[in-house]
Amino acid sequence: MISATAFAHPNIALVKYWGKRDLRLNLPSVSSLSLTLGPWRTQTRVTWGSYEDRVSLDGSWIEGSAAVKVLAHLDRIDPRRPPCTVVSDNDFPTGAGLASSASGFAALTLAACAAAQQDRSIDELSILARQGSGSACRSLWGGFVQWNRGQRPDGTDSHGAPIADQDHWDVSMVVAVVHDGPKSVGSTEGMLRTAQTSPLYQTWLDTAEANVHTAHEAVLKRDIQALGEVMESSTFKMHATMHTASPPLIYWQPGTVAAIQAVFELRKRGVGAWVTMDAGPQVKVLCLSKDADDVQRILQPHAQRVEVLRAGGPATVRVHAD
Amino acid sequence: MISATAFAHPNIALVKYWGKRDLRLNLPSVSSLSLTLGPWRTQTRVTWGSYEDRVSLDGSWIEGSAAVKVLAHLDRIDPRRPPCTVVSDNDFPTGAGLASSASGFAALTLAACAAAQQDRSIDELSILARQGSGSACRSLWGGFVQWNRGQRPDGTDSHGAPIADQDHWDVSMVVAVVHDGPKSVGSTEGMLRTAQTSPLYQTWLDTAEANVHTAHEAVLKRDIQALGEVMESSTFKMHATMHTASPPLIYWQPGTVAAIQAVFELRKRGVGAWVTMDAGPQVKVLCLSKDADDVQRILQPHAQRVEVLRAGGPATVRVHAD
Repeated sequence: MISATAFAHPNIALVKYWGKRDLRLNLPSVSSLSLTLGPWRTQTRVTWGSYEDRVSLDGSWIEGSAAVKVLAHLDRIDPRRPPCTVVSDNDFPTGAGLASSASGFAALTLAACAAAQQDRSIDELSILARQGSGSACRSLWGGFVQWNRGQRPDGTDSHGAPIADQDHWDVSMVVAVVHDGPKSVGSTEGMLRTAQTSPLYQTWLDTAEANVHTAHEAVLKRDIQALGEVMESSTFKMHATMHTASPPLIYWQPGTVAAIQAVFELRKRGVGAWVTMDAGPQVKVLCLSKDADDVQRILQPHAQRVEVLRAGGPATVRVHAD
Repeated sequence: MISATAFAHPNIALVKYWGKRDLRLNLPSVSSLSLTLGPWRTQTRVTWGSYEDRVSLDGSWIEGSAAVKVLAHLDRIDPRRPPCTVVSDNDFPTGAGLASSASGFAALTLAACAAAQQDRSIDELSILARQGSGSACRSLWGGFVQWNRGQRPDGTDSHGAPIADQDHWDVSMVVAVVHDGPKSVGSTEGMLRTAQTSPLYQTWLDTAEANVHTAHEAVLKRDIQALGEVMESSTFKMHATMHTASPPLIYWQPGTVAAIQAVFELRKRGVGAWVTMDAGPQVKVLCLSKDADDVQRILQPHAQRVEVLRAGGPATVRVHAD
């Protein structure tokens, strides 16, 4: 019986992931580019070979679909695995629109493979994490990470790859929680509806790779305006495909628009700040860290809470015999 | 010296007009389909041959760009015209997001041509009105009106045409004024920015004619669901091109999203109601008149005021010698 504990940070897509080319393997229709975010993180301990399968999340033993998804991921890592115990805790609030599934499945993959004494490359780990939750494949690295769409049917060319580490550039992501409550439509269902019904979906696909290229260059050059603009472009295109789905898929809430307008006003006053939103109402604002206080201040009136996050480091793991 | 007084109702596009193929002649890039709305109306009296050019709007003599636009329209009607007096009054509040320029230029065209004793067909009048303000070309008719994009460079095939009059079908348009204040970016500037910078603009153009066809059929069949769905599709596509312009053009305000979400909730409860928005934050909801009270009630908490409008009749004119 071996245990391993892994830590992973969440990440946020700057150039967005939206659309799947393969549902079973969780392969994306577009490449994406993300920033790993600290200090928030998930800690996951996997014990390989326990009396029975058990999953604890944020302090409670769970059953149901979330537990099934975790155990199915262990089956994926080793189809002939022994019973396992998984204990996972997030030190950040759920519902903040920063998918805990990204940090969760990155940490789970890393801890499980280590506990199972599997010798896997980081790309293999990323491919495994991707199958648990798409964006998890980007949380193995710190800083800026690119996830290529890939071409192969088996998905072996679709995994995260580091662009620049967390010390490359002092940027912040200011997260405004403008609306609590569960999302109306989950991401996978939303992606399917969009792909099947939005007349704008093809253009979304056709323009995504160029956006990733632009963002990649902007990161290397530390050009915050170029990065912010392409992030907003990718964001509004993604939401445009949602809004034009049938029936329309509007993740925005009143506070979303209030926060967007506040950031646009701030930008008119010369502060470099750009918005992004995922499949939910929360607004996240990219800026240089020197401007994070200004951004936080203008978001406060429109949000239940505002958190300032910085670039986070790579996922880590340690093995311990019990 | 002859005077004529014309009355015209505003109209709202159900399949949207957004984009110009010719700026000078005010020719649209897409066909559109509208509903003329009563009881709101503009009354405009033109006196052909007065001491000097004078323009009164809503009870005040005006100068500046609005007056220049009115007088330029008279020059268009007769380049060798005498000095004229124009007195125009709206019985509806401006800022309600129902362009008073549509009813205004329809009434101005009708009154001026009558006062000038010009014998023009209604299509010619519509073509003239279009050059004053695009959507004005639809306000000459009551009920449902289609404005074809046309192909000719001179614009002689781009004018309103009636589909069904105001008695054809008892529908209502419930207008929620969710945000006061001038719009940030005018329609013409917004159209230009969108056409030049949105990656989604081409798809907007490519899918517009099919939307008009669908809406036309739905009107003839009195199919409120088909009409509502294509209206929402056209609306969200148009706003998608705005949102993805560079810089983004977001006419929505918090109240816009609140009203949209309220209508979606109402629809889940089985009431047939669909939203549309123009180049501004106000939300207008299409429904059968029997459902207008329900719609008004759910919009009230999110709006400064809510008005229920019905199909209006055609523009009219009478000549009177002073």
